[in-house]
Amino acid sequence: MANKVGNVLIAQGGGPTAVINQSVVGAVLEARKYPQVGSIYGAIHGVRGIIEEDFVDLTQATTHNLERVAVTPSSALLSTRDKPDAEYCKKIFEVCKKYDIKYFFYNGGNDSADAIRIVNDNANEADYELRCVHIPKTIDNDLRVTDHCPGYGSAAKFVASAFAGANLDNRSLPGVYIGVVMGRNAGFLTAAAALAKKYEDDGPHLIYVPERAFDTEQFINDVDEAFKKYGRCIIAVSEGIVDSKGNPIITNLLGNSEKDAHGNVQLSGTGALGDALGKVIKDRLKIKRVRSDTFGYLQRSFLGCVSEVDQQEAREVGERAAQFAIWNDVDGSVAIRRTGDYSVDYVLTDLKNVAKETKSMPDNFINKAGNYVTANFIHYARPLIGKNMPDFERLQCPIVPKR
Amino acid sequence: MANKVGNVLIAQGGGPTAVINQSVVGAVLEARKYPQVGSIYGAIHGVRGIIEEDFVDLTQATTHNLERVAVTPSSALLSTRDKPDAEYCKKIFEVCKKYDIKYFFYNGGNDSADAIRIVNDNANEADYELRCVHIPKTIDNDLRVTDHCPGYGSAAKFVASAFAGANLDNRSLPGVYIGVVMGRNAGFLTAAAALAKKYEDDGPHLIYVPERAFDTEQFINDVDEAFKKYGRCIIAVSEGIVDSKGNPIITNLLGNSEKDAHGNVQLSGTGALGDALGKVIKDRLKIKRVRSDTFGYLQRSFLGCVSEVDQQEAREVGERAAQFAIWNDVDGSVAIRRTGDYSVDYVLTDLKNVAKETKSMPDNFINKAGNYVTANFIHYARPLIGKNMPDFERLQCPIVPKR
Repeated sequence: MANKVGNVLIAQGGGPTAVINQSVVGAVLEARKYPQVGSIYGAIHGVRGIIEEDFVDLTQATTHNLERVAVTPSSALLSTRDKPDAEYCKKIFEVCKKYDIKYFFYNGGNDSADAIRIVNDNANEADYELRCVHIPKTIDNDLRVTDHCPGYGSAAKFVASAFAGANLDNRSLPGVYIGVVMGRNAGFLTAAAALAKKYEDDGPHLIYVPERAFDTEQFINDVDEAFKKYGRCIIAVSEGIVDSKGNPIITNLLGNSEKDAHGNVQLSGTGALGDALGKVIKDRLKIKRVRSDTFGYLQRSFLGCVSEVDQQEAREVGERAAQFAIWNDVDGSVAIRRTGDYSVDYVLTDLKNVAKETKSMPDNFINKAGNYVTANFIHYARPLIGKNMPDFERLQCPIVPKR
Repeated sequence: MANKVGNVLIAQGGGPTAVINQSVVGAVLEARKYPQVGSIYGAIHGVRGIIEEDFVDLTQATTHNLERVAVTPSSALLSTRDKPDAEYCKKIFEVCKKYDIKYFFYNGGNDSADAIRIVNDNANEADYELRCVHIPKTIDNDLRVTDHCPGYGSAAKFVASAFAGANLDNRSLPGVYIGVVMGRNAGFLTAAAALAKKYEDDGPHLIYVPERAFDTEQFINDVDEAFKKYGRCIIAVSEGIVDSKGNPIITNLLGNSEKDAHGNVQLSGTGALGDALGKVIKDRLKIKRVRSDTFGYLQRSFLGCVSEVDQQEAREVGERAAQFAIWNDVDGSVAIRRTGDYSVDYVLTDLKNVAKETKSMPDNFINKAGNYVTANFIHYARPLIGKNMPDFERLQCPIVPKR
């Protein structure tokens, strides 16, 4: 066990998830058990709260409050889009020294993993004992090493529930329906739309992910075919779909777009992509009833749509982070390893294995035509949305002979 | 009791709701108890299914299947946007005679009430005994006479859950967030955003409904004030907001728009209004992070977001419809009457009282500034979303003194 007497610092970065607080609460409750831990500080608004020394004392939060925060979606410690460079990380390290931080946990995606990696390097160079553990989260499910990311299961359940409902709605009043799902580079979340399908003719009928170049002509052909077959068509599209040159379809359609601090084009918080794709279908296929919905922020923070599997894993990942740092005295990023159908355990991987780069959907999750997912994906994703996904059923009764 | 031996016909019209099948199943199960009822036919795709004689035999559906259909969102008998004129209604009546229909139930909104009213007139003129009962439904909550409409409570719960989540998300990563909610003429559903608010500084901070003329200058001032006060701003906007001349803001912004069979401009299935309002805020207030989501079809058919109060009432409204027609031998529209805080009973009102015209939010539900709701509205709406709305909680712990 690490015998470093000192304080704990924990922060949350990037886009929130429905279960992100489970991880913080898991880490905090676990850390509070160790006698060598003094205070547990939470930084407000991620790394920015660290350099501004904007801390709350989680040592003094009641267990009851923490448990209620755990079931609350979206970063309770608040978040930031700041992407720390070397200088920024240096400042973080200085604050850690100042507050006698010996254990630093950062709950975030690949950018957060990279930040904590640099802070860890600073500490090593300065010969300062600072255990740094990255606690993964992202609805995009695009972190490397881990089988899947805490936050994904709940967002996937939202997407599946949304498409299940949209399918029933569209069956009742037929037409073309496009649902635009978050996902800049990875199609995992969009692919979850397939989990909505129950009956043979249910939507989604087509799924487009950023891993395959989006070709408008092929798209029109696909929609035409599905519409002729089913008399309607439900389409799931990743906001990050790109053409064969790698240009985002949304940029092709919109021209100049807002960019964030990471140099990324704004994809969410606008209905432009869905509207533009709908227009193409209307114009080319002369289908009158074409509707698009952009799921936007609902898919990552809707109150009450959560996978119990995701909740439990997010909690355990946080708990494990504290154990790895304090009990095992090691740095790294906590990863989920699938050990059965369905069971997992938790391992620690080097921060550099998770930092910066992300992963995409493997080829065997996407069909040959590039317009749907495979059974391999369904098998992978189904357990992650949990067992409490609501079911739906059609009327089963005979047709009345015409008089 | 009506001693007319004959068959029952039931159909669903207009936009679906999360609990619309509760009403059909309530009516069907109740109707199956009466010995004078022969077969119970369900028309597929509403009134269109009637004139095309496209019927299923609900007498032969199992109770188990019906109970599972009851908890399935979106019209199980499928729907239509057809708005029957006198000629169309005449055809409906002819089919009723042909199939020996003595009890006709139409589950829909004001247009559906009007259709069944005309069919009822046809029957009366022809001296044909046909009991006609309208079973109300609409997420817009805009039917006259009834205290509220089946379907509204569940959609209101969706809107409240969405804004609760969006508020937490926006608190974590501050900016301006606009959520565009369904509602052509009535703001009831948009107003439900206020049910998301828990802490004093929670959003939504501003709510705009079609009952008050939308003034862009006032809007900019409101947003500016809220943003200065809270460092962020959450806004709920009805898709149907209009300017002082009664022109839809979306039409002002878009020019020509698609119209449906009822001559209504398409408001849903496009993110244009939210995007345009976001642009105005960015341009005028120079706020960088402005996001808009258009809730679209999710708010009326999302699988798993349902108010248990709404479910129960939708079921009872259907059951009552069958009782009024078959037991009491009367025509009309079933209305919910509030009898306590919170209790209801069900009364029958003349079809003409519900047909065609709709109602808007009463003045005492909207604040003087026209940018929020009143406590009267909260008191009215809170019981309708049920008691199972998830709660959320903030961290309660002391701030750490800076070193």
